[in-house]
Amino acid sequence: MDFGFDARTEELRATMLAFMDEVVHPAEAVFEEQLAELDDPWAWDSTPIIQELRAEARKRGLWNLFLPGEHAGVEGAGLTNLQYAALAEISGRSGHLAPAAMNCAAPDTGNMEVLHLFGTPEQKKEWLEPLLNAEIRSAFAMTEPDVASSDATNIGLSIMRDGDEYVLNGRKWWITGAMNPNCRIFIVMGKTDPSADRHRQQSMILVPRDTPGLEVVRGMHVMGYDDHEHGGHAELRFTDVRVPASNLIGEEGGGFGIAQARLGPGRIHHCMRSIGIAERAIELMCERAESRVAFGRPIADQGTVRTWIAESRVKLEQLRLLVLKTAWLMDTVGNKGAHTEIQAIKIATPETVQWILDKAIQVHGAGGLSQDFPLANMYAGIRTLRFADGPDEVHKNALAKAELRRQAARREAR
Amino acid sequence: MDFGFDARTEELRATMLAFMDEVVHPAEAVFEEQLAELDDPWAWDSTPIIQELRAEARKRGLWNLFLPGEHAGVEGAGLTNLQYAALAEISGRSGHLAPAAMNCAAPDTGNMEVLHLFGTPEQKKEWLEPLLNAEIRSAFAMTEPDVASSDATNIGLSIMRDGDEYVLNGRKWWITGAMNPNCRIFIVMGKTDPSADRHRQQSMILVPRDTPGLEVVRGMHVMGYDDHEHGGHAELRFTDVRVPASNLIGEEGGGFGIAQARLGPGRIHHCMRSIGIAERAIELMCERAESRVAFGRPIADQGTVRTWIAESRVKLEQLRLLVLKTAWLMDTVGNKGAHTEIQAIKIATPETVQWILDKAIQVHGAGGLSQDFPLANMYAGIRTLRFADGPDEVHKNALAKAELRRQAARREAR
Amino acid sequence: MDFGFDARTEELRATMLAFMDEVVHPAEAVFEEQLAELDDPWAWDSTPIIQELRAEARKRGLWNLFLPGEHAGVEGAGLTNLQYAALAEISGRSGHLAPAAMNCAAPDTGNMEVLHLFGTPEQKKEWLEPLLNAEIRSAFAMTEPDVASSDATNIGLSIMRDGDEYVLNGRKWWITGAMNPNCRIFIVMGKTDPSADRHRQQSMILVPRDTPGLEVVRGMHVMGYDDHEHGGHAELRFTDVRVPASNLIGEEGGGFGIAQARLGPGRIHHCMRSIGIAERAIELMCERAESRVAFGRPIADQGTVRTWIAESRVKLEQLRLLVLKTAWLMDTVGNKGAHTEIQAIKIATPETVQWILDKAIQVHGAGGLSQDFPLANMYAGIRTLRFADGPDEVHKNALAKAELRRQAARREAR
Amino acid sequence: MDFGFDARTEELRATMLAFMDEVVHPAEAVFEEQLAELDDPWAWDSTPIIQELRAEARKRGLWNLFLPGEHAGVEGAGLTNLQYAALAEISGRSGHLAPAAMNCAAPDTGNMEVLHLFGTPEQKKEWLEPLLNAEIRSAFAMTEPDVASSDATNIGLSIMRDGDEYVLNGRKWWITGAMNPNCRIFIVMGKTDPSADRHRQQSMILVPRDTPGLEVVRGMHVMGYDDHEHGGHAELRFTDVRVPASNLIGEEGGGFGIAQARLGPGRIHHCMRSIGIAERAIELMCERAESRVAFGRPIADQGTVRTWIAESRVKLEQLRLLVLKTAWLMDTVGNKGAHTEIQAIKIATPETVQWILDKAIQVHGAGGLSQDFPLANMYAGIRTLRFADGPDEVHKNALAKAELRRQAARREAR
Repeated sequence: MDFGFDARTEELRATMLAFMDEVVHPAEAVFEEQLAELDDPWAWDSTPIIQELRAEARKRGLWNLFLPGEHAGVEGAGLTNLQYAALAEISGRSGHLAPAAMNCAAPDTGNMEVLHLFGTPEQKKEWLEPLLNAEIRSAFAMTEPDVASSDATNIGLSIMRDGDEYVLNGRKWWITGAMNPNCRIFIVMGKTDPSADRHRQQSMILVPRDTPGLEVVRGMHVMGYDDHEHGGHAELRFTDVRVPASNLIGEEGGGFGIAQARLGPGRIHHCMRSIGIAERAIELMCERAESRVAFGRPIADQGTVRTWIAESRVKLEQLRLLVLKTAWLMDTVGNKGAHTEIQAIKIATPETVQWILDKAIQVHGAGGLSQDFPLANMYAGIRTLRFADGPDEVHKNALAKAELRRQAARREAR
Repeated sequence: MDFGFDARTEELRATMLAFMDEVVHPAEAVFEEQLAELDDPWAWDSTPIIQELRAEARKRGLWNLFLPGEHAGVEGAGLTNLQYAALAEISGRSGHLAPAAMNCAAPDTGNMEVLHLFGTPEQKKEWLEPLLNAEIRSAFAMTEPDVASSDATNIGLSIMRDGDEYVLNGRKWWITGAMNPNCRIFIVMGKTDPSADRHRQQSMILVPRDTPGLEVVRGMHVMGYDDHEHGGHAELRFTDVRVPASNLIGEEGGGFGIAQARLGPGRIHHCMRSIGIAERAIELMCERAESRVAFGRPIADQGTVRTWIAESRVKLEQLRLLVLKTAWLMDTVGNKGAHTEIQAIKIATPETVQWILDKAIQVHGAGGLSQDFPLANMYAGIRTLRFADGPDEVHKNALAKAELRRQAARREAR
Repeated sequence: MDFGFDARTEELRATMLAFMDEVVHPAEAVFEEQLAELDDPWAWDSTPIIQELRAEARKRGLWNLFLPGEHAGVEGAGLTNLQYAALAEISGRSGHLAPAAMNCAAPDTGNMEVLHLFGTPEQKKEWLEPLLNAEIRSAFAMTEPDVASSDATNIGLSIMRDGDEYVLNGRKWWITGAMNPNCRIFIVMGKTDPSADRHRQQSMILVPRDTPGLEVVRGMHVMGYDDHEHGGHAELRFTDVRVPASNLIGEEGGGFGIAQARLGPGRIHHCMRSIGIAERAIELMCERAESRVAFGRPIADQGTVRTWIAESRVKLEQLRLLVLKTAWLMDTVGNKGAHTEIQAIKIATPETVQWILDKAIQVHGAGGLSQDFPLANMYAGIRTLRFADGPDEVHKNALAKAELRRQAARREAR
Repeated sequence: MDFGFDARTEELRATMLAFMDEVVHPAEAVFEEQLAELDDPWAWDSTPIIQELRAEARKRGLWNLFLPGEHAGVEGAGLTNLQYAALAEISGRSGHLAPAAMNCAAPDTGNMEVLHLFGTPEQKKEWLEPLLNAEIRSAFAMTEPDVASSDATNIGLSIMRDGDEYVLNGRKWWITGAMNPNCRIFIVMGKTDPSADRHRQQSMILVPRDTPGLEVVRGMHVMGYDDHEHGGHAELRFTDVRVPASNLIGEEGGGFGIAQARLGPGRIHHCMRSIGIAERAIELMCERAESRVAFGRPIADQGTVRTWIAESRVKLEQLRLLVLKTAWLMDTVGNKGAHTEIQAIKIATPETVQWILDKAIQVHGAGGLSQDFPLANMYAGIRTLRFADGPDEVHKNALAKAELRRQAARREAR
């Protein structure tokens, strides 16, 4: 057992930290200004500063690092999940800017992985390559407004074969990134065979943005934020949308399996970025606590504030170790072997980080809820994680069932 | 001891409930549409529907009901705090619309009380009368960006006498309602004598919106919401703002006392409206739980969801009783005698209602955070209560000190 | 609505408080000494001091006060549930001593009510009269070791008619008071007809302690306490125990109904006594916080301790109001009408009081867990309430179902 | 970074697990029986079974394993803290039996370390050797009844030099193990120089049990348990107790430093054993949940129970990683470098394990609080950890101060 990072990670961490300090943080205000001047507020990746950041990230070797080791053939770092996790945390400290700069932003990372693992050569050429070059953006269309999407068999969007084409009909929402006009391609999950086995009914298919019949209806808000700075969350309507049969990813009925494969690494990324957010929140909380004076003393002297700071640190250390261990398990025994831990970090992360953000906001006074600090925006983002990939409750239920099975097996073995 | 409402309250409750069902709820969508069409998004009370609602409320005798019994001379109902509390809860169910319709919306209610209790005949004529007629709106300017405002002696805005005038210099923020151009008058708290006793340094003064030197700098956001539908929360800058000395409310050094007097009834109103919000949330939670199906059953069948519903109900019943008792104490022994309870409801209300809203949101899935349901907006509003009139922590500290004193006195008496 | 006690209650409260200060508290140490000298540690009511306390309570008119108003015919006060509730709280402050002194201790109170309401004249003469005179004690035998007793249909003890007798076979545990040799009579719940409707299978029957075949197996411990000072909690074994058919209480199949009727008032008593315990805990917490010095200041100055004191007060005030309202509802609309509230106080009370006790213990340091303070013993007692009459979870489930039904009805009505 | 155990640990774990299954668990009931037959209930290590267990542990090489690597000269394993931690967890699953069998039980482990590190050759010969052979037991006397012992400068027991002797006067309590008559030697912390610097006032000294003037007053109870099965917790009175000056450990004024050195490894042991307890609790909770039926289904099917199981697992995984990392830090950068983590595990462990035990108890119904399951006893033991080495609150305060310093340094560095 060894809790230290390996040399490669330490080196990349140093590069990352320098990139954050020298490039990303100074660009934050610039990005906001350029964003405000856009005609289309959703077209965030057409700001000049994003292009500059990307160029700089490439130059420093911080490009497409998310692609895991086994795919070392493509442009990328060939990092393990564990190595990349350490970098994802750092990138999370700046909200969405650093991941975008490094072409390591969700949902494109997951989409690129799907194409990399399951795409045909033609699909890779047409969509993966421009994505790896950040020329276009992509979205992943799974969640639907009318059903509890945590139960995949609920999915209602229909994908019907008709000759050489598939025809799509249905609705999706919370399709992150899709309000950005440069989001050119959607990976859409739907039902090709409602009569098949529970987990063989779904398929995934590529739908270009400009396909007739595909409407981007509106952007969903998250607690008052439209998240235009990273492409928002669209509601989509599919009315007799036709795409060539060759747009299918993998095989018919393979959608559930692809969704599962996509999940693991994305979970690590999300959780580590969230830990980066929590670290930023602790930083801000401490700074504010020392600079704010009430009743003659900095509020950092108050027992309640101290308790919050201590508990934040203690909770966060535990969480980070769990996420890192999960990454290590994925590297050593694969996604299947890490199944329980992948569920566990989904449960633990939003709870811990939301708690820390709440306390950091409280230490800031009302300002903490306002646009003057990033905390409320972070809070809204983290709050959505309690629904992402299904509400926490579904995952707790599944994790408990697995625990009960494991304990029963152990009892029998005795 | 009697936990039933008196006949007058029951009658008014019936009137109120009918008003909500017949008038307010049907107007909600209309208000939103008219609001969207305004040139100035902050000018919410210039929508035609607000005028119609007000006319209807007057007709039904639901006008200015907040004014307490002892002021029965003015137009109003002469209700006790307890009687009004029951109505405030109902009005809270529709967010800000019902209070606005009934001219019972904060911060105008508190401001009218201040003018009623402490205003000169001239001040009443000029400002109280149009407020009672809802011709204009008002704001209350206390919180400052640079200091922890929970400690009143921190207040930095300076009010200097200069001949027949007072000169104001300083900054305020979170001045609710002030973004509305029809918010014509500000009650401003500042320091007239920094060398006086701790609680005699502050004064309150009337500053009309169009006074030279007074700038409305910007609207503060609350978790992404600008709250334009009720006038937002402004940042104000005062640069050599001059008003006649006759604009002073009460006497020099009386500001702290007026602020305290303003606090009690407003606290009751806020808390009861928050309870109305929580009732609405439980309603929505139950409705959603029964209509949403996952894994073959409505989620209302799930133990976790049941637990949330039960705990919401149990918490809310307790909270309501505490707030009603506080109102009763204010009616029977006065604000001073109700001091501990007034603190207690400030501590208990946001915690309970925020918890309920969080669970209601969770039951809704991601939709609960979006513009499709009122829950996230309610959550943001309730979250601010943990700062309103000072953060909860300050009130807990004070309440504990009083408890320690009380227990020490009891020990000595033995 | 009126939150003040009526004159009769105030008067009785004064009598009670004097009784506590002058008689009960001084007797606490004496009772403990005499208890330690008993040959049979369980025979607590054979200590001389208990007899003295009882004589004094009778003299002061504080005897059998628990019997509700409608039974005013019997010796007792004819108090409403609400009036008695106020006294139950005070009696709870001394643990079990005051209730025992006033013949108002569980489980005898509930048993006397059952006999009063459902007993035949012969049963009353034989068992109710000596109980009303505190000559003997009784127990209520419902919970069973082998099944989840929260589900009444699980009850397995068999009561079979055989000629003029009933024959009982089965096991019970957690039979409070039954280790006391002076506990002469058991009210036993069992199944007379397993084929009847779910709620008509059970009957209640009187079994004298010395009936052949009835074994008192052992005393159950609660977190290390055997609770001998109030008769412990026995495990019982029934092997072909025969009692005359006339020992049946009410009719065959009526057991469930009687159990429900017994529940309401007992719940109020328990909850109010628990609130008395919490008041005592706050008292001790404040006293300790002021007398204990760490790092140069009394720990009452620490923010964390202040927070605990404040939250204890705020939680407890809310809880008390809910219990009092429940008592009022039982008085005005009956047990059925108060059903939801009776569930609510069962859920709310242990959670709140346990929380307060935990903090009071923490303020005391390790001593708080020891025999030098009553807090740990109180904690153990309150912890059991989360199981009493079924675990909290069962009640939350039922309360939620009722809330869902109520909300559905309201939606339909609209 | 590597989350797997090394080969040595895996091997020892296998040995340990076999020892538990083959030797310790079968001995549990025997120990309880033999304990019940003792004339002196505190003399637990005079039961024959303890001797047998020890012989077997020695034979299997599971003896004195706690002694860390750098002391490899003495009999022991030369394990790292990290290696030993994995074993401590397993040993915790059986309560106190396995640690006792392996001569790895507190407080002897810490005392042996103190003697090993700071003892003179004579002290080692006289006390360390018999302790390493488990011929005698020892106690560590620090906590005092009259002061908040978390603040070491509060310590009041006086140690005065008088010629060739030291004279001790004062009181101690919660001296674990000291009720056992075979506890022959006490390491006593007291003040040799009240006028010295804050952390140089205290010294440690060896006091044999039979020294005149030393009284073992009574055993403290923990929530009703006297913990006689591992020697209880004594109150001690020192009245002119005289010991030779050569009994001083280290130098005068060195007491605080020795106490700090003693703390680190003991913290790891305690926390890992607590994690073992939590694992046992999860095991019992799952077993009970599957075997207990309510309303027609095993309660393992209930959402609330599932949630508890899932949250228990998720919390515990995080906690274990933090403790293991702390052990690793102690091995790699020393106790000083691991300071924050040593505090963090003291804060996190009791909270998490107490939470899990509470839920495990609740799943068991009232039985969970009784002597029929080990859960309530475990709960009482874990509850004391919130006071051990000072209440959690003191540690949170210190950890927060360190965090604030760290963040301030980081800000300055930028």
